[in-house]
Amino acid sequence: MNQQRLFLKVYLFAIILLFESFFMSWAVLISLFQGEEIIMPMFKALFITFFIGTGCFLVSYKHKRAKATKKDYMFIVVVSWLILAFFGTFPYIFSGAIPNFVDAFFESMSGFSTTGSSIVSDIESLPKSILFWRSLTHWIGGMGIIVLVLAIVPFQNINYRQMFQSETSVFVEDKMSYQIKYIARNIWLIYVGLTVLETIFLLFGGMGLFDAICHSFGTIATGGFSTKNDSIAGFSPYIQYVIIVFMLIAGINFNLHILVRIGKLKSVLKNEELRLYFKIIGIVGIVITLILHFQKNLHWEQAFRDSFFQVSSIITATGFASADYLAWPIHGILLIMFLMLIGACAGSTGGGVKVIRYLFVIKKIKEVFRKLTSPNAICEIRYNHHTMKSEVVSSILTFILIYYMVIAFGTLFLRLTGLDLASAFGASITTLGGIGPGFGSVGPVSNFAHLSDLAKMFLTFNMLAGRLEIYALLLMFSPGFWKS
Amino acid sequence: MNQQRLFLKVYLFAIILLFESFFMSWAVLISLFQGEEIIMPMFKALFITFFIGTGCFLVSYKHKRAKATKKDYMFIVVVSWLILAFFGTFPYIFSGAIPNFVDAFFESMSGFSTTGSSIVSDIESLPKSILFWRSLTHWIGGMGIIVLVLAIVPFQNINYRQMFQSETSVFVEDKMSYQIKYIARNIWLIYVGLTVLETIFLLFGGMGLFDAICHSFGTIATGGFSTKNDSIAGFSPYIQYVIIVFMLIAGINFNLHILVRIGKLKSVLKNEELRLYFKIIGIVGIVITLILHFQKNLHWEQAFRDSFFQVSSIITATGFASADYLAWPIHGILLIMFLMLIGACAGSTGGGVKVIRYLFVIKKIKEVFRKLTSPNAICEIRYNHHTMKSEVVSSILTFILIYYMVIAFGTLFLRLTGLDLASAFGASITTLGGIGPGFGSVGPVSNFAHLSDLAKMFLTFNMLAGRLEIYALLLMFSPGFWKS
Repeated sequence: MNQQRLFLKVYLFAIILLFESFFMSWAVLISLFQGEEIIMPMFKALFITFFIGTGCFLVSYKHKRAKATKKDYMFIVVVSWLILAFFGTFPYIFSGAIPNFVDAFFESMSGFSTTGSSIVSDIESLPKSILFWRSLTHWIGGMGIIVLVLAIVPFQNINYRQMFQSETSVFVEDKMSYQIKYIARNIWLIYVGLTVLETIFLLFGGMGLFDAICHSFGTIATGGFSTKNDSIAGFSPYIQYVIIVFMLIAGINFNLHILVRIGKLKSVLKNEELRLYFKIIGIVGIVITLILHFQKNLHWEQAFRDSFFQVSSIITATGFASADYLAWPIHGILLIMFLMLIGACAGSTGGGVKVIRYLFVIKKIKEVFRKLTSPNAICEIRYNHHTMKSEVVSSILTFILIYYMVIAFGTLFLRLTGLDLASAFGASITTLGGIGPGFGSVGPVSNFAHLSDLAKMFLTFNMLAGRLEIYALLLMFSPGFWKS
Repeated sequence: MNQQRLFLKVYLFAIILLFESFFMSWAVLISLFQGEEIIMPMFKALFITFFIGTGCFLVSYKHKRAKATKKDYMFIVVVSWLILAFFGTFPYIFSGAIPNFVDAFFESMSGFSTTGSSIVSDIESLPKSILFWRSLTHWIGGMGIIVLVLAIVPFQNINYRQMFQSETSVFVEDKMSYQIKYIARNIWLIYVGLTVLETIFLLFGGMGLFDAICHSFGTIATGGFSTKNDSIAGFSPYIQYVIIVFMLIAGINFNLHILVRIGKLKSVLKNEELRLYFKIIGIVGIVITLILHFQKNLHWEQAFRDSFFQVSSIITATGFASADYLAWPIHGILLIMFLMLIGACAGSTGGGVKVIRYLFVIKKIKEVFRKLTSPNAICEIRYNHHTMKSEVVSSILTFILIYYMVIAFGTLFLRLTGLDLASAFGASITTLGGIGPGFGSVGPVSNFAHLSDLAKMFLTFNMLAGRLEIYALLLMFSPGFWKS
């Protein structure tokens, strides 16, 4: 029985690897058509991934019907991501683009987790196939490889719901569980559709096809890797506005996109999380516009564009930069920090704590104050007309506190590796939130190359912790998990 | 009816003022015996307080049996503290020791709220009666004037429990409510007893009687005002150890002192909050001792003493200084910051979030992880063998989040008044926690004199917010509160 479960795991990892080699082949094709010198190393990376994937598949194929426990699913999800990132380093290492393993693992995890923090100093010197692979890892990781696998591969005996929830932050309601396969497919369809749409819009703005595809990958996945050293700063205002709009779309719960698709626009517009998301963006965006206009003497248009680009980029955890927010007045920087702690909507490709959790905080605070003055009033916390259990609310509050604690612990740990306080805090908050740029020496115009190997390894795991919303990874480190 | 309730309020304020003038007369006596020049201004302060108090008493005496609502009690508690602090400025202003009202109000509120932040640069130049008044305000505020009033004055129709809970953070259990008067009396007895005991111990160490009394007031109330410019740094190790021990005692839930008094030592030793409190102090104290020994090259004894003095002073929110922690290695400073966020035990004179609330956070986190792996397990959160309702837990988590938000808001507000970020954060966290010293320009060897009037007024209210555990004061600012 135990052996069967082991083989089931190997089977799932095999499928992940086969998917990864499928995507890797795109990068190899680019390398081939560009006539790059690194075509052989790229092919080697693809071959090894495919070979190991096939080997695992053949060994484990018979056991795909084994039943797994809840712990198994968590283990599968966490290790799948580690495998993805590990094999994702091969193109970097073999091609010599990023020869050092720790650096390559950091870059690879940063890609798959859609963080967008980079250790590459001169991005434009990289071969096109490597640039493409970087952006593609965002795109693969953005919606979640597990969701993709669930959408395509037919499984028996697999608890879709548990796998789905371990990877995404969509709140799956009970009655929805049987439709998970349907949802997963729809999400991927919308995901592909949005990517194509943005590419077309960028092409209209005069961006080349290669750059347009790479930036679309980075936007829709809320990743943040660019093909340019100065990120989006060098592109025209039109292109910046296009990216703003698509970042904001990518930060919305994909369930809502499905609702739009099936014509339920009304319930989308009434969605409480969505309203708060746009309220925050609107208010913070306007305040920063005013700050930039009056304190930095920028034109109204540029102040507006710089502000909303950065606000959208940070709240959705994309991390593209059109301006260096560290050069802003301190109040602007503090607002950016505030956005880093918020994050996008649940069920989107964005990172962070997620707007919905803060919505519950606000509701709970209101309840506490209502009870202070009318102690006998019966208070319920409702979300989109559904009553929420008191336990759910306290679990959400606990998540937020744990999230803050992980940031604090990360800051302390990085400080001990020798980083200054601002950079340590910035690196901790930005990798956990899957954002990209931080503060201090890891700001929007800097990179993570100067960090120690220990710090880089820590941040690599921090990115994964953030992508999987902390619990799954933390559990792996708890001794209780390994007791049967 | 409404008018009756108004008179009831006036009646309670009158009693507060009469108590205050009683205490003020002690300072006047000191001034008299010392033959100070400021005796007339001191007497004037006393006279006005007593006169207004008596006037209010005569006007409202008849209505003392009116029934008050829950909102009334909150209003009474908040305004009582504002009145206390307002009349407490008279000795400072009339004597010319602190001529500016904003400064005097800051110092007075800092005293009554047992914060211990000061705007006085040269403390030793103040007349003895003023020094005594400063320390006495700590002592009055420490246990709570309301508790004192409840303990002594017989009321009818007063809901003791609601008044008691608005002022203290003791978790009053239902079956305890009828004993509140008994508890309030016992608490004051223990409070006086501990103060006398510490004074005796300090006298044995060669401290003068005046200094011994003032420092005992500051210790048992976890206040932090000293009579010396360099706080406790100039005193002998013996005296520092005595103060460490009494600070730690003052940080314990006074209900436990009652239990000790009635012989239930066993249940005290099993108290979960108490154990965590001493665990935190022990661990952080030892870590800082090691840091000071190895990184600052201090002798073991001095490293131990400096460490445990500061750890005790900060976690109990006293704020006495025997060393400048800002001159420590950064890890030491971060640990101090960590302690500032924790605070003492509930039901003690100390401030901050309180250990018990973090205890619940730890329990809740454990529950969340237990549920992740065994979703069907029935989990309960128990405290000292009592099961806690899920709602209580989520309210505690909400309080912690609100606490952090108030710190963040305060930091931002102070930053906007022109303070640098470290000082703004330090001032915000230290006044809300009732601690005393902060970071940056408001560290242990600095003071708050250089802040703008706006910043001082804000911090004055921040101290009150912290003393009353935020909710009562925040409610006053909500429009809903004033609707009938």
